[in-house]
Amino acid sequence: MSSALERICIIGSGNWGSTIAKIIGNNVSKNLEKFDPKIKMWVFEEMVEGKKLTEIINTEHVNVKYLPGIKLPENVRADPDLVSAVKDATLLVFVIPHQFVKRSCETIRGHLHKNARAISLIKGVDASSKGISLISDLIASTLSIDVCVMMGANIANEVSKEQFCESTIGYRDAGNAAIFKLVMETNYFLINCVPDVEGVELCGALKNVVAVAAGLVDGLGFGENTKAAIIRIGLVEMKRFSSIFRFLSTSEPAAEDQPSNWETYFESCGVADLITTCFGGRNRRISELFVASGKSFEQLEVEHLNGQKLQGPSTSKEVYEILNAKNLTTKFPLFTLVYKVAYEGFPPSQMFEVLSSYAMDEYHHIAHKL
Amino acid sequence: MSSALERICIIGSGNWGSTIAKIIGNNVSKNLEKFDPKIKMWVFEEMVEGKKLTEIINTEHVNVKYLPGIKLPENVRADPDLVSAVKDATLLVFVIPHQFVKRSCETIRGHLHKNARAISLIKGVDASSKGISLISDLIASTLSIDVCVMMGANIANEVSKEQFCESTIGYRDAGNAAIFKLVMETNYFLINCVPDVEGVELCGALKNVVAVAAGLVDGLGFGENTKAAIIRIGLVEMKRFSSIFRFLSTSEPAAEDQPSNWETYFESCGVADLITTCFGGRNRRISELFVASGKSFEQLEVEHLNGQKLQGPSTSKEVYEILNAKNLTTKFPLFTLVYKVAYEGFPPSQMFEVLSSYAMDEYHHIAHKL
Repeated sequence: MSSALERICIIGSGNWGSTIAKIIGNNVSKNLEKFDPKIKMWVFEEMVEGKKLTEIINTEHVNVKYLPGIKLPENVRADPDLVSAVKDATLLVFVIPHQFVKRSCETIRGHLHKNARAISLIKGVDASSKGISLISDLIASTLSIDVCVMMGANIANEVSKEQFCESTIGYRDAGNAAIFKLVMETNYFLINCVPDVEGVELCGALKNVVAVAAGLVDGLGFGENTKAAIIRIGLVEMKRFSSIFRFLSTSEPAAEDQPSNWETYFESCGVADLITTCFGGRNRRISELFVASGKSFEQLEVEHLNGQKLQGPSTSKEVYEILNAKNLTTKFPLFTLVYKVAYEGFPPSQMFEVLSSYAMDEYHHIAHKL
Repeated sequence: MSSALERICIIGSGNWGSTIAKIIGNNVSKNLEKFDPKIKMWVFEEMVEGKKLTEIINTEHVNVKYLPGIKLPENVRADPDLVSAVKDATLLVFVIPHQFVKRSCETIRGHLHKNARAISLIKGVDASSKGISLISDLIASTLSIDVCVMMGANIANEVSKEQFCESTIGYRDAGNAAIFKLVMETNYFLINCVPDVEGVELCGALKNVVAVAAGLVDGLGFGENTKAAIIRIGLVEMKRFSSIFRFLSTSEPAAEDQPSNWETYFESCGVADLITTCFGGRNRRISELFVASGKSFEQLEVEHLNGQKLQGPSTSKEVYEILNAKNLTTKFPLFTLVYKVAYEGFPPSQMFEVLSSYAMDEYHHIAHKL
């Protein structure tokens, strides 16, 4: 029967990857009829105080660099060779920075098990001159396999300490979603599944644009009401954007009212992750400083993030370019505003005038009945 | 043409009533083709430093007791006589404490203009041995008029300072919603209208139950993820409760899946007001103290609220009683939990175990497909 066992490989070993490895390692040990207990974790090899990181993980069972202080289960085995890590796996968990996805997929193409399926835990989208594309689509098309996604209000350090939270799997194949849920759910990490890969994945990118707007509100010194309104408008634009996303990527004309997977936004990937990101999170924080300091986002990234890029402003630019090309910016006043504040010098203090002038047209359902 | 003008009476003059009076007074002056510029505001007469409050309002144009520092438009006229205030009005704005609604309606019954319609800005529900009923239903049935409601993330002091925010009108008659929107909307106070009186009104009561749960999370010292999960679960239970509310008030059997007005929860009355209440607000604050101090809610109300009652715990009791009578508590684990913590000594530290055991059954869409 052992040939029917599912075998898991975690591709990535950062803060979130190591946290998920802890969960998966424990879960498979409790379900040996379904899973091979040995988990592979691909680790980008590096030296830590003179020792290889893979060796530290395999002997001390702690990722001392990216998740210090948290014991990993002993059945999680670090492997520095990507092809060797994936070759027998039937379930692949992608959790690497999005800029490495393409190369990683090309490396493993042709080396996968015939029954391999994947889930992507990678936040962000892939922007090019042709528009925005999903990381899950990149994986699916490069490897010709089914890909689910999982997003949610999941700060890795809190999850690694087993604080109660939730997450959302977006799927096309319900059976694959169910098996990944079984692999990753615990009594402190609850997973719901929704049949909306695009919605779930876009939430993980678009929330950062909304968080920039929330940070502007904080920087301007407005109160709870105003911030809640901005978060709400952001949630509505997230839903709207995802409902027309397939149209944005093609040359088809836009249908006026696309059906929308509204359930997705009631899940952890939607409203919960948005709240977390708009109250905590560095996009909000740097955006607040943007107003207070008058410095550019670029300068603030250098000063506060060691030059790492914030996702919110850059995502707003990618979103704006595609909306502008399709003549749809008026339907997305908040996203457009964030772009114009971040890149075109639009004064944050005028953000509410812009939103209310749009609102009079766009957000009002029955004014025309007067 | 003057007989066709709409005349407005604001019934109530507290913090929120005075704020709305400021908005309405200014709005009607800009729209003299539709509105009589003279606004009546019923004021419960009291003496303030030796002068009648109505006289202070009518000479100094400030409600020095309930909205100090904010100038009211001079066309807002305070009237201490309820029948005199309402008798010519075609548009009634109810904004009094909910315990005074019944008596006020009985006082004015038979004295209303034949074209009178109302909107209720009153938060809370009316609980009796027969279950929970809506304030708007109480007004509508006592006066035999159409009643809209308006709720949202609207802290009066922030609105009175013209900080940008939004609100939601729930309606049965779209024309009435549109006229109230025209009366109350400004460029800093945006109103959306949804055809869901019950959903909008229930949001204003149920959010306080969720805020108690959010306060427990804060008191227990958990992080952002956990709090966001609790808020999300609360939002889902709010939606679920309102979708079966009519069933709860009757002896009809419950349909398994009621259609739900999900749009309502994307409005200000839904997600936005819930966020405001779960991050600010006294239900959250006292609930946090409940965990930290080990004192009862009753004792904390005495110590911190001059004996005023918190709405969250009492609403959780009313909700629990009706759910329990209908054998539906397992579909509302968060609401039930808040009741049990507040009234039955259930330890907050065990809240997550309860939620996850329910979740395994209730929140999961596709586990059965495994």
